[in-house]
Amino acid sequence: MAKVAIMGYGTVGSGVYDIIKNNADHLSRSVDGEKIELKYILDIRDFPDHPEPNLFTKEFNDILNDGEVTVAAEVMGGLHPAYEFTKALLEAGKSVVTSNKELVATYGTELLEIAREKNVNYLFEASVGGGIPIIRPMHQCLTANNIVKIAGILNGTTNYILDQMIRKGKTFETALKDAQAKGFAERNPAADIEGHDACRKIAILASLASGKFVDYSDIDTEGITAVTLDDVKYAAAMDSVIKLIGYAEFGEDGKVYSIVSPMVIKSDSPLSGVDGVFNAILVTGDCVGDVMFYGKGAGKLPTASAVTADIVDAVKHRERSKKIFWEKPSGTIMAGKDSRKFRYFIRTNDNAENIRGIFGKCEFVDNLISGESAFVTEPLTSSEAEDKTARLRDVVTKLRVMA
Amino acid sequence: MAKVAIMGYGTVGSGVYDIIKNNADHLSRSVDGEKIELKYILDIRDFPDHPEPNLFTKEFNDILNDGEVTVAAEVMGGLHPAYEFTKALLEAGKSVVTSNKELVATYGTELLEIAREKNVNYLFEASVGGGIPIIRPMHQCLTANNIVKIAGILNGTTNYILDQMIRKGKTFETALKDAQAKGFAERNPAADIEGHDACRKIAILASLASGKFVDYSDIDTEGITAVTLDDVKYAAAMDSVIKLIGYAEFGEDGKVYSIVSPMVIKSDSPLSGVDGVFNAILVTGDCVGDVMFYGKGAGKLPTASAVTADIVDAVKHRERSKKIFWEKPSGTIMAGKDSRKFRYFIRTNDNAENIRGIFGKCEFVDNLISGESAFVTEPLTSSEAEDKTARLRDVVTKLRVMA
Repeated sequence: MAKVAIMGYGTVGSGVYDIIKNNADHLSRSVDGEKIELKYILDIRDFPDHPEPNLFTKEFNDILNDGEVTVAAEVMGGLHPAYEFTKALLEAGKSVVTSNKELVATYGTELLEIAREKNVNYLFEASVGGGIPIIRPMHQCLTANNIVKIAGILNGTTNYILDQMIRKGKTFETALKDAQAKGFAERNPAADIEGHDACRKIAILASLASGKFVDYSDIDTEGITAVTLDDVKYAAAMDSVIKLIGYAEFGEDGKVYSIVSPMVIKSDSPLSGVDGVFNAILVTGDCVGDVMFYGKGAGKLPTASAVTADIVDAVKHRERSKKIFWEKPSGTIMAGKDSRKFRYFIRTNDNAENIRGIFGKCEFVDNLISGESAFVTEPLTSSEAEDKTARLRDVVTKLRVMA
Repeated sequence: MAKVAIMGYGTVGSGVYDIIKNNADHLSRSVDGEKIELKYILDIRDFPDHPEPNLFTKEFNDILNDGEVTVAAEVMGGLHPAYEFTKALLEAGKSVVTSNKELVATYGTELLEIAREKNVNYLFEASVGGGIPIIRPMHQCLTANNIVKIAGILNGTTNYILDQMIRKGKTFETALKDAQAKGFAERNPAADIEGHDACRKIAILASLASGKFVDYSDIDTEGITAVTLDDVKYAAAMDSVIKLIGYAEFGEDGKVYSIVSPMVIKSDSPLSGVDGVFNAILVTGDCVGDVMFYGKGAGKLPTASAVTADIVDAVKHRERSKKIFWEKPSGTIMAGKDSRKFRYFIRTNDNAENIRGIFGKCEFVDNLISGESAFVTEPLTSSEAEDKTARLRDVVTKLRVMA
């Protein structure tokens, strides 16, 4: 009998409860017939109508001090007290599984180190890509591959907004309101639309792939607030779509180049067809080539399904480290922002002669809006693109094109 | 130090050799610093120019009787002697990993049972989807989900042929010759184009998902030899493509419905955009919803990368069963061929009045070819579709439409 606790009875926590209750046989089969029993649900709120009121506690110490509890699911979200709770549990020799990307991206290095020392596990499959199996398959891919590149649609809210612009011709503002009305976007949507959520997720994936901590605050992050319906239409004219991409490249020198940015993506990329609130992560390995993982990146049951799989894995691997971790690098491992070149899609009110004078060879796109010029540059570093664009008159749009 | 053997030095075997040699550090990191050393390569042929001639043996017993060897990679292909070798190794308490889908689909139940008894592992990640991580992620998804459905593009050769028809307007015959010239199709392409390869793969996935052996010979299998360029053009007119799909549905009664068939797929399905020799497997779980795994389904390094990941996993789990297996069912678990309805796309030289008389409500598609009628039926069982179609004059095409 394995006894577990859920910490935080919000959307994900109640999903984990439902799955443990409804799929008990399955779970038991997965751990060789051993029953997984839920012993505590921690929440500061009251749930008077819950069918199992005796499970609830407001006291974290009930879980911490209960020697029977070997695994806790931290699905509270936020940094505090999630950090303190997780640390205390790991130090007490209990495994913790989580959907909390902010915590993993911020304190993951320390928490993974404690888990390793204590020979328990800190698992975070649900922190990236919701229900999509990505952390473990990437770890598995990694076994025989050097990961070369990761490009992911990591945030369902922004993908839904862009998709509504692409398919329904809505403006950004209308699409955002629509997403809020449907519950896909928060009332304060900044974390999503400004790219911070995607940034934490690519930081986690880049840390895992490189084996060294990639600090999300070192990742240049641009959201989708500047993307207009006209940009989307230009992209369509180029047989492309605009997607918010969390991007990381891994050099042979051990350096990591990473950005979060809206990018123009050709329709022949498997990422281009990822619609609505779906997520997809394209991983390129030196042996396996491109592999992609696709599915619902959020939502109660998809996310809870990943958390539950981690619970089962933690039960199976009690007192045996899964060795999914990264370490703090001695110096910086971030490659400079100019170490990688992209082609850029640019719209400007300047004329073709000036454009050619500044950018040299470039590929013009048929105007959709009178008076402006639209073109795609040759590959440029970030600084080159900035410097050259600054010399143009009235720049409307500057977007990276994914290779 | 873990000592391993490669059995069969063909395309995949030499790829495994390359990865073990080139990525030794990685592999070692994955197994906690323990070195993985290749001790034998079994092949009946001579490789006089190989850099490590001392590794080669023609004697299977060298491997079987060497107590130091704990893991063998069976990448010989074919049923015999691969079956006898694998069985002997497992019975001797060694783990075996394989890319041999035919062997897994045919003797998997017995071999998995022996592995379980002996507390070793028989792993087969490379047998489906080449380098795509699918067996383990599906096993992981399974933990918290009841798998409802699997639909996969499981054969790169047929996908390449169909893709050439779709994108380049080639006929089936020309596309097949092109695939043969490029090395994507065998000189005798029957196993691919008649669907047998896809059939073995969906049988493996269905066995894994249901936990019970699904015999590939019980799966109705239709290849792509009857698909014409005109069919492909009609599909395009319906905003769809034609793909060869390995399909399985899992009823709450424990029954499995499975077929291999070319299907008409709407462009909004993530499977529709899978091009060239790529594979993709769409798995639907009751909690997670749709997840898709995409990548190269064949090729030296992609497949070898999956085999190597299994070697590492077998080394990590020596004398500890991974519990990825299925059992022989007591009776049949196959649902009847009429237990599931599909809509059908039909072309005929019959007239609209007769068609409506036979099929009732149906959706006509604008004719691309004069004199014929093209339409999509309401959902029908396999027998209903056959019976009704038999009453039409001059049926040109009858294809399932994927829901």
